[in-house]
Parts: sequence; structure tokens; C-alpha cells
Amino acid sequence: MYDRIHNFNAGPAALPLPVLEEIRDSFLNFAGSGMSITEVSHRSKWFDDVINDAVERVKRLLKLDDKFHVLFLQGGASMQFCMAPMNFLADGRSADYVNTGTWSTKAINEARIQNKPIKVAASSEDKNFCYIPKDIPFNKDAVYVHLTSNNTIKGTQFETLPDTGNVPMVIDMSSDVMSRPLDMERIGMIYAGAQKNIGPSGACMVIIRQDLLDLVPDNIPSMLKYTTFSGKNSMFNTPPCFAIYTIQLVLKWIEETIGGLEKMDARNREKADTLYSFIDSSSFYKATAEKGSRSLMNVTFRLPDETLEKEFVAEALKNGLGGLKGHRSVGGCRASIYNPTGIDAINDLISFMKEFEKKA
Amino acid sequence: MYDRIHNFNAGPAALPLPVLEEIRDSFLNFAGSGMSITEVSHRSKWFDDVINDAVERVKRLLKLDDKFHVLFLQGGASMQFCMAPMNFLADGRSADYVNTGTWSTKAINEARIQNKPIKVAASSEDKNFCYIPKDIPFNKDAVYVHLTSNNTIKGTQFETLPDTGNVPMVIDMSSDVMSRPLDMERIGMIYAGAQKNIGPSGACMVIIRQDLLDLVPDNIPSMLKYTTFSGKNSMFNTPPCFAIYTIQLVLKWIEETIGGLEKMDARNREKADTLYSFIDSSSFYKATAEKGSRSLMNVTFRLPDETLEKEFVAEALKNGLGGLKGHRSVGGCRASIYNPTGIDAINDLISFMKEFEKKA
Repeated sequence: MYDRIHNFNAGPAALPLPVLEEIRDSFLNFAGSGMSITEVSHRSKWFDDVINDAVERVKRLLKLDDKFHVLFLQGGASMQFCMAPMNFLADGRSADYVNTGTWSTKAINEARIQNKPIKVAASSEDKNFCYIPKDIPFNKDAVYVHLTSNNTIKGTQFETLPDTGNVPMVIDMSSDVMSRPLDMERIGMIYAGAQKNIGPSGACMVIIRQDLLDLVPDNIPSMLKYTTFSGKNSMFNTPPCFAIYTIQLVLKWIEETIGGLEKMDARNREKADTLYSFIDSSSFYKATAEKGSRSLMNVTFRLPDETLEKEFVAEALKNGLGGLKGHRSVGGCRASIYNPTGIDAINDLISFMKEFEKKA
Repeated sequence: MYDRIHNFNAGPAALPLPVLEEIRDSFLNFAGSGMSITEVSHRSKWFDDVINDAVERVKRLLKLDDKFHVLFLQGGASMQFCMAPMNFLADGRSADYVNTGTWSTKAINEARIQNKPIKVAASSEDKNFCYIPKDIPFNKDAVYVHLTSNNTIKGTQFETLPDTGNVPMVIDMSSDVMSRPLDMERIGMIYAGAQKNIGPSGACMVIIRQDLLDLVPDNIPSMLKYTTFSGKNSMFNTPPCFAIYTIQLVLKWIEETIGGLEKMDARNREKADTLYSFIDSSSFYKATAEKGSRSLMNVTFRLPDETLEKEFVAEALKNGLGGLKGHRSVGGCRASIYNPTGIDAINDLISFMKEFEKKA
């Protein structure tokens, strides 16, 4: 109806159509304000309603208790790679990092650049990050354990979170946040660039537990301190209003249209299972991630050779299936199938894959 | 036609109506991509075209030569308060700061929090920041001189930039960027949160000269280094795509609809002159900034008492004139009249002010 394609981009990625339609329809006059959402003051009741509703929806969806603060920051997950060690390791203590791919490696580097004495407790680099390490020997004295729950580039995901004992986990959930229910019991912080599962680029959701806020030192710049934002409902300075507004609408869609995270999970599993089953049944397509470590969000696969892969991506786009190229650092193909992607997109993709194989 | 109001907010602020209409009309399918601008990959030709066009327009409008890099970062001007001293004063040298109000004071504090040995070369705090200091004794050995060219809260503005000799200026232009032509001769860097003159919140434009990039040390986190972004056309990680897209459209409007910065300046002067002339002709309204230091962007004024001010702001909104409350830290009234505001808004405001005075 709008000549839209199925969008398999890794991020920025597809958004729910009803969300886009609502933004469009109210874009010149938001909530009777006589202004666009891009024009209303962040100190107005209109924007207060937006951000407060977004925070409340996050709390309900994840069943958060009062120990947790929900923040919306800028700079993406990459800024969190720097902020987490800066805020939590001020006293010279150590943290454990699990290295499961490109983004974990970056998180580790940003801690080391600050001379923080972190330890890599486990890594899957030995097999090009195609699996998730098990039975990790965590250090009991670590301030936190850092994980990347889903690896966008390598197509792997923690099926369940590891047991870190009494050490709180700090988790980069940029590519699987809000895709399934989450047990917050041992989690100290999660952070997620919005542009995959919950919104557009330009905002990073941070959920942080009070005892981690208590570790934040005074002598770091205001914009790099979690306490600056937790004390001001994310509005120490002007927040990324449009991105937060879009997140609010996506959260509303998850809660009210999909029906919550259990249902979101069921829908996401059906999509991934359907696609992996087809790939596993084929000798032409080959999944790159090990069974037991496969991502429900980013399905990475190879064709027999790179020429065919290039043709596949180009031909798919002509057939209304966009964004299937693997990350430039690893090559191959990748279908990113975050929350907004419907089963119809998966079915259309599989039909195309069958046709392409026949013709190849 | 859309029940829109005249928006005098200080930021986020009014945007040009044709820009809002273009965003709305292409929101479901951007440039034939079959995706929303919020859904296209930042590594796509669609977004490359957007950011490259924005950069080229900035270069043309400000007549920048190749020494300058145009970047779009996150975190607003507040993040620049921290980044400028971190990047340029790594070797222990000093910089001069001019304190002309709330935001300058914050910039000074963020340098001091990092133990940078900066000096306040001049301040107008003695008269509650109602004027811009003249004949400032700058330190010839400073790495840079930091200024706030327009003071959103106090309603003052540098009429002309001071002579800093061979020391490059680093200027927070959040509230007057692109409002008039700019002589870049002695400027090392300008930065501006977009949400006043050139776009929505969520992106900060930074224009930086190569010799300042040469000062950036290696041992600071990637997201806090200017060289990280100058080497990657602002795309080290996912940029705030929607905000950059909106900035591109506003720059296009300035260049093609208004006709460039000379014409933008003439339009802005006419608006400000009209409003200040009316205020000066009245004994009921009183401008708070000294003549010679008055902002063309933020016109701050008082009524005879605070009860009347409260009534004025409320009554104005009922008459389709929004955002006239002064900043919560200073009280009073303020009309922010950035680039997008038309002379029609000024005339309607003056009509209302006359009516309100009659009835008061």
C-alpha cells in the first residue's frame, strides 16, 4: 500500500507499521499541542507524558521493582562501553568481561583505554565467535560481569544468562532487549541502543539498579555520570525527544498490540525457528552459528560462494527483501528479524530463498 | 490549517512548516527506499546522501575551507562542555573562558571537574549576566578561548566576536548557529545543539578545524574523541539518523527558501528589531538585557509583577502563542525567535501584548 519492503536491516531496522502511521498522522500537531513532537519543549506536560509513559511501560513489561531506574541517554551502546567502567570501577576494583564478538571486544577495549583492571573471564574467539561460552569461571570479587546477550554480527545469543553468583551482570542488550521476558534477579544494569528492537537510532535505554548508582564517583564529567540522569528523569539537558517518543509508541505496541513479552517471545521464536528449520533443511544455505548458541534476532548464513551471496542480496532487494547483506566485517548473509518483523516477512524470505536456489 | 500555534519555545523550538510537511509526507517510504527514514541503515546510500548533503550545505552556508570538518554528535552542547577540555588540554596547558551566563558557567564547571587549569578571562556575573563583557584581557598562551555566543536564558548575544589574536575560539553557538553569516577566520571550533535554529533535539553539530584535531590524545575513550568521528564522517557508531535528516532539511530551507545566511540575518534582525522596538516603546514591558548586548534570538522581558507575568503566559497560550515563560532559573518572560519563526509570529505577539496591557 505504500510500496514498502520487508526490511531485514541489522539496525536501524524495521519499525511496526502502526507506529510509523501514528507518528506521521500526528506529526504537525502532537496531542493537541499545536506543535510537532519535534517542537514541543522537553519541560512541557506533553513531553512529560511521553517519557513517563515510556518509563512505566518498561517497568511493567520487565516487572521491575523500585530498585531499578529507567533512563534514556545518548551516544548509543558505544557510550556505555566507556561509561560503565568509568562509573563502577572508580576505586580500582576489577570486573569480568565475556568476549562473544565484535561489540564485546569493543566494550573490553573501552575499559582498557581507561586503565581499568578488567579480566576476560571467557571468550569464543577461538572459533570465530560462532558459539556462546558455557561454565564460565567468574571471579567472585568482580564488581560486575559484562555480557553481550545477543551478538548482532556473529548471530549468536545467550539462550539463558549465566550464573554469576552474587556479582551483578551488566548486559549490552542492544539487539535483543524486549524480545523476551527477562529475569532481573542478578542483573545490575542493562543497556540497549534503541535502533533494533524498540525504536529509531538516537537513544540508548539504560536500566540501572540503585546499588550500582551508589558506586558512581563525584569527579567525572556530568554527562558521563549515571547519577546525573537518574536524578533528573533523563532530563539533565535536552533529551532526544523524537527517539524517546518513538520508543514509547513501540513499547505501547509490544504491550497492547502484541500482548507483552511472553507473546513477543513466542512470536520471535516462531519466526527464528521457521527460518533456521528451512536453512538446516537446505544444503545450499548454511547457518554460521552453532546450534544452542543461535540468535533469535540475527540469522546469519552463507551460500556456496561469495559471488552467489552478492547476487542473492541484490536479487532479494529487487524482490522487496532489503538489508540481507552480512556485516562488512564478516561477509555472508544475515536476516535481522527483530520485534517488529512479522512472520509474513519470514515466509516471503523463505519463498525467495527457495526460488533463488532453484535458479542458481 | 492544522490548528498550529506560534511556538516561542527556547528549544526544542519551532521548525519550518515545509520541513515538517516533507518529513510527514515521506515518513512511510523515504526516497523510494520502501522504508521510513527511521528504518534505513546508516550504512546505506540513502543515509549517505542525507548526511553528505547536510555537510555540504553547512560548508557552503558558512563558506568553510578544507581545514574544517563538519560532524554530527550526540549528547548536546553539554557533552561538548566535557569533550573540548578533554580533547584540547591533554598536555596540561590552559584555556580562557568567558562567563556570560548559565551555560558558560556549566562549560567552566565541566573543565574544572577534570582538573583542567582554565582561566575565566571575563565575566558579567556582577550584573546578573545582563551584558556582554568588552575589551577582554585574553591570555596569549591559551590553547583556546571559550565563548557562548548567545545566552538563551539571559537573552544576551555577542554583537561581534572578540579579537582573540592568534588564539582560536571555541564557541557554543547552540542558540544562534546559522542565524547570520560567520567569519571563521579565528574560529577553531563551533558546536551547537540542533534543537533551536537548525533541527530537533538529539544531534549536536560540531565544526572543528584540523589543527585542533591534532591536539586530541590517544588515551581517552573512543566516543569522547573528536578524531573518532572526523575519521568516519560522524559514523563511528550508529548516528542519530532522524535528527540529522531533519537538520539536512532545515539547512536546505535556509539555503534554498530563505536564500542563505545574509538573508537569514536580515529576516532575524527585522523580527528582533520589531519586538525590541515595541518593548522599548512601552512602560509596561521592560527588556532585561542591556542595549548593545541584546540577543536577536531570545528576547527576555519582564512585566510589572510576577502575577501579571503568570497571567500573560497563560493568556498568550490561549491565544495561540506558546512557550513565552522565561527559564525557570530566572523567571519573567521570553520570546525565542529562532530561524524558523516568521515575522507574522512577531506581529501576532505584539498585537497580543498590546491587548494584554490594555486589559491589565
